[in-house]
Amino acid sequence: MTKRPRDIRPLRVVQYGLGMIGAACARAVLESRGLRLVGAVDVDPAKAGRPLGEALGSGSGARPPRSLRVSPSLAAALARSGGADVVLHTTQSSFAKIFPQVMECVRAGLPVVSSTEELALPFATDATLARRLDALARKKKVAVLGTGVNPGFVMDILPIVASAASRNVRGVRIERVLDAGTRRASFQRKVGVGMAPAEARRRLAAGGFGHIGLKESALLVATGCDLQVDEIREESHPVIATRTISSAFGPVRKGQVAGLHQSLSGRRGGREILRLDVVMALGVKESHDAATIDADPPVTMLLVGGLPGDTATIAALLNAIPRVVAAPPGLHTALDLPLPRPSNRTR
Amino acid sequence: MTKRPRDIRPLRVVQYGLGMIGAACARAVLESRGLRLVGAVDVDPAKAGRPLGEALGSGSGARPPRSLRVSPSLAAALARSGGADVVLHTTQSSFAKIFPQVMECVRAGLPVVSSTEELALPFATDATLARRLDALARKKKVAVLGTGVNPGFVMDILPIVASAASRNVRGVRIERVLDAGTRRASFQRKVGVGMAPAEARRRLAAGGFGHIGLKESALLVATGCDLQVDEIREESHPVIATRTISSAFGPVRKGQVAGLHQSLSGRRGGREILRLDVVMALGVKESHDAATIDADPPVTMLLVGGLPGDTATIAALLNAIPRVVAAPPGLHTALDLPLPRPSNRTR
Repeated sequence: MTKRPRDIRPLRVVQYGLGMIGAACARAVLESRGLRLVGAVDVDPAKAGRPLGEALGSGSGARPPRSLRVSPSLAAALARSGGADVVLHTTQSSFAKIFPQVMECVRAGLPVVSSTEELALPFATDATLARRLDALARKKKVAVLGTGVNPGFVMDILPIVASAASRNVRGVRIERVLDAGTRRASFQRKVGVGMAPAEARRRLAAGGFGHIGLKESALLVATGCDLQVDEIREESHPVIATRTISSAFGPVRKGQVAGLHQSLSGRRGGREILRLDVVMALGVKESHDAATIDADPPVTMLLVGGLPGDTATIAALLNAIPRVVAAPPGLHTALDLPLPRPSNRTR
Repeated sequence: MTKRPRDIRPLRVVQYGLGMIGAACARAVLESRGLRLVGAVDVDPAKAGRPLGEALGSGSGARPPRSLRVSPSLAAALARSGGADVVLHTTQSSFAKIFPQVMECVRAGLPVVSSTEELALPFATDATLARRLDALARKKKVAVLGTGVNPGFVMDILPIVASAASRNVRGVRIERVLDAGTRRASFQRKVGVGMAPAEARRRLAAGGFGHIGLKESALLVATGCDLQVDEIREESHPVIATRTISSAFGPVRKGQVAGLHQSLSGRRGGREILRLDVVMALGVKESHDAATIDADPPVTMLLVGGLPGDTATIAALLNAIPRVVAAPPGLHTALDLPLPRPSNRTR
């Protein structure tokens, strides 16, 4: 039978990373019935040492206790807090970059839920690092999971589960379309709104621009749906405004960048059997998430209006905490863990 | 990391129950790469003792080997087969009725995947029987799961997963609408097509008519989404034809039964926070499955065209086999097990 979080004492959480998502996570932990924020880590000298309330800024929601300060390291946070049950890690997208941070958490005997996109399927990103992290996690008897809304949910785990009452999956097509016009300024900046097309193309080619994690989603789907992909091609290009569209930074003129279209094609014997498209741009008709599964029976799933990235990411991370704390030791993917579900509720 | 079924030897399956769904399951197992049918059980004297090929009738798909016969009991099937890895159990809807059958499987040291609707949440149906089965399963070190498409997937597990990137679930509304006109005659009969309204009402009141498992779905959702329901009301009534509609049995006249509408309302303090509706009738506009989740963020999920019951049930049962074989011992619900996913593929 399933234990309810409220039947057990709140889990003590250290928030590692206080960027935009990390600060929102810290606020959400403060509000949560089943969780207790006992520490916060950020290496940024502008944040470290300050009261957490100041570092979180003026966002809405619960205020942290005055005693909580931002620590410059995990060790310092643990020394201050006198113990923790789990680390909620939200720093960077690259597995190689966050590897020492997560190793540090595991070495301290703490399970980790991380928003690092490349940690959603770490064995695909860097098998050597993944094996080292997995070995240490097993030795320290804690679980590690990379998750979030994308990768980790809307373009992989949810479509995989949607096909769980089907056999013979022959092809999967997933699309996420977000109207950037309804999103905050920092999101519009992230998808190149108002940029010159050449600049957007240059940044897309350089990598780390736009949505990160399409390959992780594709490989999760290929594994989860048993699709034998032998070739993956990624292609991204800016969406060019065909008329003047208003944005958070003023009007975007015809010919300027209105957003991004990133896509991935997974093939077998030259034939496309997996396709993922992310469109994040001003002027798209209707935000939505969709998955079309060619199988017996076929499935066409639509999330009307689409899942909003930020709030869903925070919810996905917090909901993962009880599952990861209870999971067998090791470096996991969402494919190995019990059913994801909404285990989080504010006070 | 996740083991792929093809990396391990096929799992030896005994099919227990050769009704419509059981026969289709047996055919599907025969076709499956990762599964091998080693026995079949049916207590019906018209089937027991006959070659399995005859008992399965003229359905499409793989033919069973001539050596496979229908056994009158599990013990006889196991004696013939020389061993098995799992039982696929498809006999009746009532937990109390199938209890001795599943206990027999577990006593023989075999994990069980069952289509019994009341086994989707057995502790809610009969906690005493559930505890006995759970204790024996733990002792024999095998797992037991009741699953299928409904209950077990489309009105419970899939909506629960769809809300896994949300917090604070305040309400869930799920509907399954099936155009009976596109379904086989036995389905139309099951939902009362052509019946007199009084007769349909009498049968609905008596129970065991129409869809079985709405309460199990509701309780799975309440548990999975942490909705504190304190009262459940079920209400069912026939859908009456308002014009002549053609059916598998000839025209259904105005005033006759065109199908069923079954609903369940879950309340807290008198307020409805959970609602499930199943409409299976001639003349409905468009088959679909939908879930609307009032949470942060809210989710509106639509399965366009709806999941067809029979093929999806068979797929859900077969897909559950590898997860149940690998699961820790005990009587499970789908909430406790790893992610459901399409693990089954025909040769």
